[in-house]
Amino acid sequence: MAFYSFRDDYSDGAHPEILAALTNGNTSIQTSYGEDDHTENARNLIKEKMKAPDADVHFVVSGTLANIVAIGSCLRPHEAVIAVSSGHIVVRETGAIEALGHKIITVPPVEGKLTVAGIKQALRDNSHYPHMAKPRLVYISNATEVGTLYTKAELSEIAEICKQHKLILYLDGARLGAALSAEENDLTLEEIGRLTDIFWIGGTKVGALLGEAIVINNPVLQEDFRFHLKQRGGLLAKGRVLGLQFEALFGSNLFFELASNANITAKALSTGIERAGYALAHKTITNQVFAIFSDEVIAKLESASSFYVWEKLGNGTSVIRLVTSWATQSQDVEGFLAML
Amino acid sequence: MAFYSFRDDYSDGAHPEILAALTNGNTSIQTSYGEDDHTENARNLIKEKMKAPDADVHFVVSGTLANIVAIGSCLRPHEAVIAVSSGHIVVRETGAIEALGHKIITVPPVEGKLTVAGIKQALRDNSHYPHMAKPRLVYISNATEVGTLYTKAELSEIAEICKQHKLILYLDGARLGAALSAEENDLTLEEIGRLTDIFWIGGTKVGALLGEAIVINNPVLQEDFRFHLKQRGGLLAKGRVLGLQFEALFGSNLFFELASNANITAKALSTGIERAGYALAHKTITNQVFAIFSDEVIAKLESASSFYVWEKLGNGTSVIRLVTSWATQSQDVEGFLAML
Amino acid sequence: MAFYSFRDDYSDGAHPEILAALTNGNTSIQTSYGEDDHTENARNLIKEKMKAPDADVHFVVSGTLANIVAIGSCLRPHEAVIAVSSGHIVVRETGAIEALGHKIITVPPVEGKLTVAGIKQALRDNSHYPHMAKPRLVYISNATEVGTLYTKAELSEIAEICKQHKLILYLDGARLGAALSAEENDLTLEEIGRLTDIFWIGGTKVGALLGEAIVINNPVLQEDFRFHLKQRGGLLAKGRVLGLQFEALFGSNLFFELASNANITAKALSTGIERAGYALAHKTITNQVFAIFSDEVIAKLESASSFYVWEKLGNGTSVIRLVTSWATQSQDVEGFLAML
Amino acid sequence: MAFYSFRDDYSDGAHPEILAALTNGNTSIQTSYGEDDHTENARNLIKEKMKAPDADVHFVVSGTLANIVAIGSCLRPHEAVIAVSSGHIVVRETGAIEALGHKIITVPPVEGKLTVAGIKQALRDNSHYPHMAKPRLVYISNATEVGTLYTKAELSEIAEICKQHKLILYLDGARLGAALSAEENDLTLEEIGRLTDIFWIGGTKVGALLGEAIVINNPVLQEDFRFHLKQRGGLLAKGRVLGLQFEALFGSNLFFELASNANITAKALSTGIERAGYALAHKTITNQVFAIFSDEVIAKLESASSFYVWEKLGNGTSVIRLVTSWATQSQDVEGFLAML
Repeated sequence: MAFYSFRDDYSDGAHPEILAALTNGNTSIQTSYGEDDHTENARNLIKEKMKAPDADVHFVVSGTLANIVAIGSCLRPHEAVIAVSSGHIVVRETGAIEALGHKIITVPPVEGKLTVAGIKQALRDNSHYPHMAKPRLVYISNATEVGTLYTKAELSEIAEICKQHKLILYLDGARLGAALSAEENDLTLEEIGRLTDIFWIGGTKVGALLGEAIVINNPVLQEDFRFHLKQRGGLLAKGRVLGLQFEALFGSNLFFELASNANITAKALSTGIERAGYALAHKTITNQVFAIFSDEVIAKLESASSFYVWEKLGNGTSVIRLVTSWATQSQDVEGFLAML
Repeated sequence: MAFYSFRDDYSDGAHPEILAALTNGNTSIQTSYGEDDHTENARNLIKEKMKAPDADVHFVVSGTLANIVAIGSCLRPHEAVIAVSSGHIVVRETGAIEALGHKIITVPPVEGKLTVAGIKQALRDNSHYPHMAKPRLVYISNATEVGTLYTKAELSEIAEICKQHKLILYLDGARLGAALSAEENDLTLEEIGRLTDIFWIGGTKVGALLGEAIVINNPVLQEDFRFHLKQRGGLLAKGRVLGLQFEALFGSNLFFELASNANITAKALSTGIERAGYALAHKTITNQVFAIFSDEVIAKLESASSFYVWEKLGNGTSVIRLVTSWATQSQDVEGFLAML
Repeated sequence: MAFYSFRDDYSDGAHPEILAALTNGNTSIQTSYGEDDHTENARNLIKEKMKAPDADVHFVVSGTLANIVAIGSCLRPHEAVIAVSSGHIVVRETGAIEALGHKIITVPPVEGKLTVAGIKQALRDNSHYPHMAKPRLVYISNATEVGTLYTKAELSEIAEICKQHKLILYLDGARLGAALSAEENDLTLEEIGRLTDIFWIGGTKVGALLGEAIVINNPVLQEDFRFHLKQRGGLLAKGRVLGLQFEALFGSNLFFELASNANITAKALSTGIERAGYALAHKTITNQVFAIFSDEVIAKLESASSFYVWEKLGNGTSVIRLVTSWATQSQDVEGFLAML
Repeated sequence: MAFYSFRDDYSDGAHPEILAALTNGNTSIQTSYGEDDHTENARNLIKEKMKAPDADVHFVVSGTLANIVAIGSCLRPHEAVIAVSSGHIVVRETGAIEALGHKIITVPPVEGKLTVAGIKQALRDNSHYPHMAKPRLVYISNATEVGTLYTKAELSEIAEICKQHKLILYLDGARLGAALSAEENDLTLEEIGRLTDIFWIGGTKVGALLGEAIVINNPVLQEDFRFHLKQRGGLLAKGRVLGLQFEALFGSNLFFELASNANITAKALSTGIERAGYALAHKTITNQVFAIFSDEVIAKLESASSFYVWEKLGNGTSVIRLVTSWATQSQDVEGFLAML
């Protein structure tokens, strides 16, 4: 009997082209610690796609490690991060940023997003010098924790206020593929590079086995970065593991194709749910669908599919989160909808 | 022309008996690093007052240092603090606890206080093991940032839920003197010792030049404490500086008398303000008065007194905070009220 | 023209069986974050080999991350590590342990090894309580940085003094495969499990693409370990990446066979060098050969092989380090020796 | 019966003028947190004495806290300190610098001092980028742990190599008074200000109750310093406590007079010991005398005096350390010598 997995976008293995790349690049002898040919090539592919020859690109194995190494490299001990209270670094990384010594100043999200008003509030509420940590880095993620997107106008406004207040703009791109491939998106990788000081491109959630690419646009932040990588355990001896995967993702259009597949199947799922007469908790924009069902329906769905119960609404209904991935197929969507 | 200072409770110098103690204890030769006779005597005086012969008592120079050394000594890297969002460690210590590596989980205060419901919410919202830091220490202060008190019943309930969930109960006593000396208070130093794992008694805000006494009730937390003291810069070479002051405060009833003076003058100030037809933002319980005036009145008051504008109410009026201290005299109160 | 690589044991890719495992295990849907079937199976294989059903096994991507997560999980802020001054964490990890807040007390190595005398000296020299950090964890690596081994007698003595002084015994096993497979070795994996509190088994240097297995023998140290893993960025979303590789290494005898290949080719290389009339700086025990050549010979060798110049001896000669790996073939050795 | 204390230079209380200053400055109302008139005046007195109007001066309560706040403010996470292995931060501060996250690279001392050769060695041995922490701050103390002095030539050479290698030169001045007042000294406070980036002037060991003055000469290091002060618990609410004492020390020549007294009595003690036929382990330069006695003599001396047994020489003799202070009187010296 078929079982449909919509639990997250990392319960699948890697896309076959990623695996093939690992196999094809296995036999050569390569310089270690990220100085191999494949990593160098992957770096260049990303910089070309961004039209940013002066950017620095580094690869790490996980999103948490990307946040640790990158944010840790930007800040002095008394400096703080501004983020929405639903931010990934706030609620899902076991206090990793605080473990580096930095306070996170939180403000309420608007549709999962940080707003200029939120940044201004954080600056105002944390201005009692020197009794408060100094706001210094603005953390956003695109797509956000609830799958929403920053528009070009929004990101530009945030970049502008960061410049005014000497704040570093940092973008967590765990699901940047889904963001950039969304129908509603009006941002390019190139623009993200121009508007942020530092950001990263998630590979794990777009078909890689593991791997995220940190891109440093601001030259001041580029200096000494490899020390931080090494000190936090992020420098792989066989760095090719990461380089090969990003070569595969960015050597062709694979990165965007895989992200698109997730978005398209999410939209199909979302449309089908609405057609079947059920409501959504949020509009479906990227690869996460938030749908409302009665607890009886949920119990039945759980017998042949997996997902995360996101929020109990208290009236016998709950929001469930359904996540699609590079591997989701139209028959998965159809099978799930057939159950409804 | 007279000027009335109600800015805070540390703009005055030390009480004369404290200064006399420093002078009288100056000429002897003493063992260094907190092992002198005066520190030993001060320790014993506090333990006697608490009827807690097995408690450990250590002295440090400032409240922030007390929080750093004590909280840092209790926690492993993945463990977090629960506090109200208005807590002193949250908003007034430049991220000192995060600088030790620990996340602070905040919940909304109720009259400045942490509630059992707040603790339960923090536990519930931070239970996604191992993606969230582990709640381990509950931080409260008595009196709170807005001058309110924990009742015996409230503190007992909090102690009970801490025991159930293996949480360390920590009490910041920067203004514990004011709390214990308040009319509404029903807690004793002894009970605070029995209900908390570790707490501190503020000296700076009760007439000392500087100094806070950390009391460790839980024997597990006593081990190795002096290493933490030394590592964080908290071990004074001439430890007598702190011992002598606490001998003076606890050798007689001085600690409670000085705190009472602050409370009594605050009440007189508060009553006078109400009689003059102005409203309070909060009931006056300890040595902080929160009063509402029009901005014109505030401007006039500022010409002959100092205080902190706490919150602009947006309709041409503001809340101001008036703080009394061990040194406030009835003529200060009368003079200020006469201006009204 | 042939080129012989003896630079290190991580310039090669993965062993074909490792790659095959990654491919074969790719298509299933698995629970994330190290709770997949393959990781669970790899855990059990290691515990069976160790006859230690109560051990805990966790996998991380790199040796530095293994040291960060494991050592960080063991220590409170005032506690220090004892290590030899040539230890990997002392000289090759960018201060990663200090970045966690811990001092490393160093003592001179004897043939690369920490001795009981060294531990006693460290305890004696760091006993001025509380002005010195408290020695709490003993760090050793097997094989050592210069390829030497601990005998069963030596490791037992160290374990004994650790027990006497309540020191945690920690073994870095980046090259544990080479150690256990060496001709001179008299220790088993089971004994290492019994004698240490916590240790790790390196995969990266024995044919894996990446991956190290942390084994926690002491139950006190097992608690909450996954929090540390997550907080330091060490928990992979697609945890199967590590589980699959260790299944391959420990599901058969592959781990020991690959390590043996490195040892055997090193011995052949070493013997050939001596036969050709050159001296060794150290006896060859595991997969590292330290040979002395004139700088002219070195220049010629460099034209067709790669290695690390370890130490200039100052008289026109230098020590070079030649490292063999799972991938070294007898013709590589013969080719290199032919150049001599 | 008389008892002679030569144990250290902080077992005495404060000099009477210091106490008088605390008393005289007690009654006024002052702005808190180091912005009071006395602290401002003390700042200016020090800057005038240094002819350095652009220096920044901050006061903290202890030497360890001075080192924590100052060194922590200078470094990014991957940067390391170079110090001699006998340095105070290396062996007497419970790993306080490592607790900030920074490695200390140690080199052997020459007469207690760091040499240019030592710095060069540290740079050479820690150049394997990015696998080693990056040397960034050179720590010296003057006088050193064994009471020796840096000459103007030596300090200039060190400053020169620091400039060449972009190293911050940091001087711990716990006993700077003794150094500057020594007969052999050829450095002035002004020159120390010009040659170092940041240094501190110890008050605790020169007659203050507590207090050290951190002087920041390099403008880049001045920015945001008060955040660090507050975050580490070093900002006193009643900052006048420190300001008043340094006003007393630097408002007249008191600082130098008190330090001179210690040096002069040390020299008298030293001369007397040699005249009595005993040898010194080191030449007496500042206020520490290292003398060699048989263990029988030591036992007798201990009956009527206190000192620290510095080193057992293994042949029935030991080195003892005798420390004089601002409070040592000639009759103390004579009394001790009479016992011999």
